Amino acid sequence: MKAYQELSKEELLSLKNQLEKEFEDAKGKGLKLDMSRGKPGVSQLALSMPMLDVISSASDMRTVLGNDTRNYGDLDGIGECRRLMANMMSVNKDNVVVCGNSSLNIMYDTVSRSMIKGVNGSTPWSKLDKVKFLCPVPGYDRHFRITEYFGIEMINVPLNDDGPDMDMVEKYVNNDPAVKGIWCVPKYSNPTGISYSDEVVKRFANLKPAAEDFRIFWDNAYCIHHLYEDRQDEILNILEECEKAGNPDMVYIFASTSKVTFPGSGVSAIASSLKNIDFIESQMTVQTIGHDKINQLRHARYFKGIEGMKEHMKKHADLMRPKFEAVENGLEKELAGLGIGTWTKPNGGYFISFDAMEGCAKAIVAKCKEAGVVLTGAGATYPYGKDPKDSNIRIAPSFPTPEEMAQATDLFVLCVKLVSVEKLLERMQ
Amino acid sequence: MKAYQELSKEELLSLKNQLEKEFEDAKGKGLKLDMSRGKPGVSQLALSMPMLDVISSASDMRTVLGNDTRNYGDLDGIGECRRLMANMMSVNKDNVVVCGNSSLNIMYDTVSRSMIKGVNGSTPWSKLDKVKFLCPVPGYDRHFRITEYFGIEMINVPLNDDGPDMDMVEKYVNNDPAVKGIWCVPKYSNPTGISYSDEVVKRFANLKPAAEDFRIFWDNAYCIHHLYEDRQDEILNILEECEKAGNPDMVYIFASTSKVTFPGSGVSAIASSLKNIDFIESQMTVQTIGHDKINQLRHARYFKGIEGMKEHMKKHADLMRPKFEAVENGLEKELAGLGIGTWTKPNGGYFISFDAMEGCAKAIVAKCKEAGVVLTGAGATYPYGKDPKDSNIRIAPSFPTPEEMAQATDLFVLCVKLVSVEKLLERMQ
Repeated sequence: MKAYQELSKEELLSLKNQLEKEFEDAKGKGLKLDMSRGKPGVSQLALSMPMLDVISSASDMRTVLGNDTRNYGDLDGIGECRRLMANMMSVNKDNVVVCGNSSLNIMYDTVSRSMIKGVNGSTPWSKLDKVKFLCPVPGYDRHFRITEYFGIEMINVPLNDDGPDMDMVEKYVNNDPAVKGIWCVPKYSNPTGISYSDEVVKRFANLKPAAEDFRIFWDNAYCIHHLYEDRQDEILNILEECEKAGNPDMVYIFASTSKVTFPGSGVSAIASSLKNIDFIESQMTVQTIGHDKINQLRHARYFKGIEGMKEHMKKHADLMRPKFEAVENGLEKELAGLGIGTWTKPNGGYFISFDAMEGCAKAIVAKCKEAGVVLTGAGATYPYGKDPKDSNIRIAPSFPTPEEMAQATDLFVLCVKLVSVEKLLERMQ
Repeated sequence: MKAYQELSKEELLSLKNQLEKEFEDAKGKGLKLDMSRGKPGVSQLALSMPMLDVISSASDMRTVLGNDTRNYGDLDGIGECRRLMANMMSVNKDNVVVCGNSSLNIMYDTVSRSMIKGVNGSTPWSKLDKVKFLCPVPGYDRHFRITEYFGIEMINVPLNDDGPDMDMVEKYVNNDPAVKGIWCVPKYSNPTGISYSDEVVKRFANLKPAAEDFRIFWDNAYCIHHLYEDRQDEILNILEECEKAGNPDMVYIFASTSKVTFPGSGVSAIASSLKNIDFIESQMTVQTIGHDKINQLRHARYFKGIEGMKEHMKKHADLMRPKFEAVENGLEKELAGLGIGTWTKPNGGYFISFDAMEGCAKAIVAKCKEAGVVLTGAGATYPYGKDPKDSNIRIAPSFPTPEEMAQATDLFVLCVKLVSVEKLLERMQ
């Protein structure tokens, strides 16, 4: 296969002609597929249905410690669910607060609290002239929307195969006191699927922030979301590494069971140093009387412990693998060697990241939409929705079936080819 | 019975002697009762246990509109639950967003949003020199803690039998642009149990706020929480009245099923004008991907509609009535005519409010605690925990059994008598 860049104008024109015909055919198929969000598929949701039987009118509703989960109390979560989430996050139970159904909501609240009250007594961020966050890119659009909402300036930091560009992170964090945070998805990153190397985690833990209230927002959303039994990423424990490095309060860790049990009906948690947890609880006690402890009990009893949860995740993996492979095979078969795109092959998580030729992402997404396949909006993986190279596209293979994913990928590669040919022709003019 | 004020010093001293003996006897009983919070009793919690069977692994998890409650989506709540909560709040479904498990959390978020973003485009409250809230007193301690947390200045407004002192409310709201809100529990008020008269609601609706971003925080927590079949308070519909008065955006209404189903595992909702709802959702979409829709479905299917919910509340009333009556009978029997206390006899809600002689509340609560009965801290019903007269005590009869409530009331009246005698003797010195 010849790279498109090596084709003559005539070859490109003829190819364009042919691809346009194929595209018209594809449109005729009337596809209607959504690969825009990391939504679990229906078969994944079915895996957790037995959890709904765990709590019934016949259940003993008391925790191990005898607290009635049906009534007010246990602001920081019931013990058995704190233990479960602590094990999921590889931290001690005392370092964990179990919250509501959404870890995004905890992140929002964490930024919001910092705006209003500062961090452990520092000046409230809303009183400062300028607050900045580092944003490894491509990254998670909903992280960026939180910081954008609060008027926090976002700075792009390239995300490499082993984590963010740490030279750049150190330069900013260690020198600029306006830099108050960094968004991280350290394992099976959204969207590239990479995991942070031990060296990167250690360099994070050993930062010397210019701002005392700098915090790492460590969204470990995919901590147990492997795709393969024999190819699993593991990352160093950031809380331990921060302690070792004399920065015990520098990190907030977030996780949830949104993609373990039910999106929207799972439980979420934050883990941090005891000092941070105390500060967080002093605000939480004003915000709410407590979270849904019956749902916490439901989760704790269903999984019985972290091993049960990990077994459950193997079933998710069995369902997800064919979908990822359908995409990867389609991309490999149709695009390898053409020089018009590169993509990731993650060992876990929810996404495949595709980098098109510069200036092509928006057009590819639009073309796909025209033929009935909805992708995450181009640019969404960058702060302010602005991908400076207009190159990155996030592919979310979880929701459609493997067959649909194969169909969608066929259309996707066709759109990539067509838009790339058009771009190359445009450059020749 | 002679009023204590009419007793001579000798009579008071002899009474004091006798009461002290009775108190020592009471201490010997080793009571351990908690009347501090509006916690439903165990028998009330049992009423909602069948709801836990409504959703099981065999359930169709789709909404009436076909949306899968197990997955992301329906940010504003599933249709059938929005309808249920709308009917509970006597508003249209379109005016309602169903949220998580805590209406307090919605109130917190509403104030927080106003701090950060202002209200429908007004200056963020955090950027203003001074923000003030009116606080009808006695009132709900957790309301006051929210405004205190955000550094909002709280102004006491007397709560009369028909609602807040509206002359004072109008004076503040219509003249001071720093006054941005007022906390209201319009029906079966916490703690006095009074409900706002039609005239009061109309005067609220017809306010002419100096601040465009003034809002009424209408916490209709006890909207369907009657105690009696034949003595029920009803209040005017504030949203409609505000519309009629040309102030359609002036009110936020809050409610939840915390005291209908399970505290902590219910659903909460906010109702307001469509314009306000749009603004709220523009923030909610940043804060979360959505709330627990399975629990929304559980509620909607269990109650089937507002009539089912109202039937359910009759069972609550049957359990609550004897507890309220145990307190009221005890107070009436032991304190009537003594001139050392007045109390409310609400038709619904969760509390009885007791006003002791000035300067006695703290001492009464302390005395009760000494003998094993925990009351809400004196002062809690006032902003900053400061009751200027040290007079008001909130009694929460819901959690103990009727028998325990009778015992607790016996101790309470004893403490009231003893502290009052001491106070009268002190005044004679």
